[in-house]
Amino acid sequence: MEQKWNFKPSSTLLDASSLSVRGVLCRIMGHMESDANDPKPVIPLGHGDPSSFPCFSTTPSAVDAVSNALRSGKFNSYAPCVGVLSARIAIAKYMSRDLPYALSPNDIYLTNGCAQAIEIITSVLARPSANILLPRPGYLFYEARAVFVGVEARYFDLVPEKGWEVDLDGLTAIADENTVAMVIVNPGNPCGNVFSYEHLAKVAETAKKLGIFVITDEVYGHLTFGSKTFVPMGAFSSTVPVITLGSISKRWVVPGWRLGWIALNDPNGILKHTKVVDCLKSYLDISSDPATFIQGAISDVIANTNEDFFVKTVETLKMTAEMCYNKLKEIKCINCPCKPEGSMFVMVSLDLSQLADIKDDMDFCCQLAKEEHVIILPGCAVGFKNWLRITHAIEPSSLDDGLSKLKSFCEKHAK
Amino acid sequence: MEQKWNFKPSSTLLDASSLSVRGVLCRIMGHMESDANDPKPVIPLGHGDPSSFPCFSTTPSAVDAVSNALRSGKFNSYAPCVGVLSARIAIAKYMSRDLPYALSPNDIYLTNGCAQAIEIITSVLARPSANILLPRPGYLFYEARAVFVGVEARYFDLVPEKGWEVDLDGLTAIADENTVAMVIVNPGNPCGNVFSYEHLAKVAETAKKLGIFVITDEVYGHLTFGSKTFVPMGAFSSTVPVITLGSISKRWVVPGWRLGWIALNDPNGILKHTKVVDCLKSYLDISSDPATFIQGAISDVIANTNEDFFVKTVETLKMTAEMCYNKLKEIKCINCPCKPEGSMFVMVSLDLSQLADIKDDMDFCCQLAKEEHVIILPGCAVGFKNWLRITHAIEPSSLDDGLSKLKSFCEKHAK
Ligand SMILES: Cc1ncc(COP(=O)(O)O)c(C=O)c1O
Ligand SMILES: Cc1ncc(COP(=O)(O)O)c(C=O)c1O
Repeated sequence: MEQKWNFKPSSTLLDASSLSVRGVLCRIMGHMESDANDPKPVIPLGHGDPSSFPCFSTTPSAVDAVSNALRSGKFNSYAPCVGVLSARIAIAKYMSRDLPYALSPNDIYLTNGCAQAIEIITSVLARPSANILLPRPGYLFYEARAVFVGVEARYFDLVPEKGWEVDLDGLTAIADENTVAMVIVNPGNPCGNVFSYEHLAKVAETAKKLGIFVITDEVYGHLTFGSKTFVPMGAFSSTVPVITLGSISKRWVVPGWRLGWIALNDPNGILKHTKVVDCLKSYLDISSDPATFIQGAISDVIANTNEDFFVKTVETLKMTAEMCYNKLKEIKCINCPCKPEGSMFVMVSLDLSQLADIKDDMDFCCQLAKEEHVIILPGCAVGFKNWLRITHAIEPSSLDDGLSKLKSFCEKHAK
Repeated sequence: MEQKWNFKPSSTLLDASSLSVRGVLCRIMGHMESDANDPKPVIPLGHGDPSSFPCFSTTPSAVDAVSNALRSGKFNSYAPCVGVLSARIAIAKYMSRDLPYALSPNDIYLTNGCAQAIEIITSVLARPSANILLPRPGYLFYEARAVFVGVEARYFDLVPEKGWEVDLDGLTAIADENTVAMVIVNPGNPCGNVFSYEHLAKVAETAKKLGIFVITDEVYGHLTFGSKTFVPMGAFSSTVPVITLGSISKRWVVPGWRLGWIALNDPNGILKHTKVVDCLKSYLDISSDPATFIQGAISDVIANTNEDFFVKTVETLKMTAEMCYNKLKEIKCINCPCKPEGSMFVMVSLDLSQLADIKDDMDFCCQLAKEEHVIILPGCAVGFKNWLRITHAIEPSSLDDGLSKLKSFCEKHAK
């Protein structure tokens, strides 16, 4: 008799990896392997991690802070579920600089990067038949985590013609009494946009009307280089409860350090009153924590980082964004509706009618990877079929090279 | 009109914290706060984290390895979802030392401590109506994570009269065609037991008959100091697929570093064939990773740790276990059925009939914390009402002090 095993795979889970940037990029990179002897360098315009490029390397003071915390021997133990107190104090202060009121350390919960913050908040909001409103195009990790815990993901539009602002009427139309929250990402991934103060104020009013919380993903906070400065959504928390997700991954360019947070901007105590806080603490009790010594280092990481470092990073991003935007304009089958003003990306549409033998965005990216070793994220990975998300945050010389290859690829495949 | 918010808390989630050791210890510690001016030291016999005690401090070579990886600047980026290759190679080799065959690096998946390994594996096994078999007494984190993803937790007994062996008939009786896996913890938490080779062989045979996988939590692996040596369950993987969960938390005494793993012991390719591997990879795509530089350090952590360090730790544990066992024998209302042989704990039963004013195990622990500042985990937190789990892995002088206080507390409250 053949041995039987009771386990059966879940299709939700098997599908989840198509909602992950890493999962999709992995598939695309797979198309290069067939040509392993090819000496062409790989040009990664697909992901949001410039940490390996010299012009984006982190500040030595941050490395020292972590090393000191490690060597102190004081942070080898398990941390409290909510996070090490000194870190919560430091992050509360850091965030309060840009807010009209001060956050308390009790409003801050440490997470294993912003990714775990997303996992935690979707899990906390989960209940049967609940739904959550997500931006399209967007960061599909939210959908993956929401769907995994049984929360329905509904999409509202970001409008390219309006600088990727939220379509608030459309958002209102898809909300119902089971809608618990909406998500915005600001500065935007994948759009590279930055929301104005006025627009955020409208978002807050709309959410309040709908009775839903605002989750604001500010992992790219402060990385702005256009006309608009970064306004944290927390500034509107007297209108609506705002749950801010952040991390040191992008501003300090250390995504491998895995230190993020959830900040509750809730001056009216609504998150407490509705028991979001209790659910959050309970979920943290059954979650794994970021490394204790990295938590222990965070107050020094923040205190010892020179403003110059931030300025330099933003200047570099401004330069790469500019370069990317200008070079893309020369490519006929690609259209860039908005000049990027923040984060590390630009969203462009692909005019397939001008291409001879390309089926769709995924096909475009796979063939590009195969022929040119240039990696770009297809729009399908951010919920926007037949667009492309291009990362400009890499070493300028490589960016230049990658964009030239992209251009010649498009020319080669033109009708 | 009063503002309405759509969010409603989930009772599953609100209840989860009672399934967490940290959650329960937090509540018990709360009973001390009313007496904050009391200069009595807190004696923590409640948790499995001796890292703050000098006699358990980690080896300097491990600290150097992490510091070097951090300073190299090579590990600031996101890691691959499955983990950094050098770490997977090192862990595969490390585990293969004790196995009759060699694991491949592809069998190893890195996690944010064993806690995240538990989260991941329960999530991977989840499907509607699936159930999982857990030991009682046990580590309730498994139940918390299983229930959160909709998997039913069913309990089989560990039998104190048989040195806490698994009641295999009872286990067979509760399994059905929806049972996907069983969990064992070896060396045991909370029981401090170690399973023999013969018993593990029977576990494997039973699981095979039932068509279920064996998840073996070996986070306390190698921490044995009695008559039985540690046998990894992976030794029986030609009989049944074995999923080993582990971490550096306990053996290296660095629980704050958050580096664990899932190892698939699957020489017959059953986990691959049944798509456990695909589900696992997919879930890793939507999970957050351990810090990259800690992953990058792990090969050196393993290579550079002197055997003397392990020997010293085990000798200290042997001594504290002995001391604990002997001192507990002097306490009338406490009965210790088995001398601890592994991990950091001992399970003892509480004879409430001998106590005047103690309602149950939780009440016992709360009053003990309040009066003596000694923290012990009540049996309810490991699924065994009116027992106690006592940690002996602390500095011997503090242990002595704590046990004396426990004794006088029991005498004071005796009938
Ligand atoms: C919008 C957005 N949120 C969250 C994350 C995850 O960030 P972290 O590295 O802090 O986990 C990313 C990473 O690229 C992101 O783009
Ligand atoms: C049985 C068991 N499994 C897993 C864990 C979690 O270990 P880690 O620190 O590696 O997350 C613990 C922690 O005490 C434990 O006792």
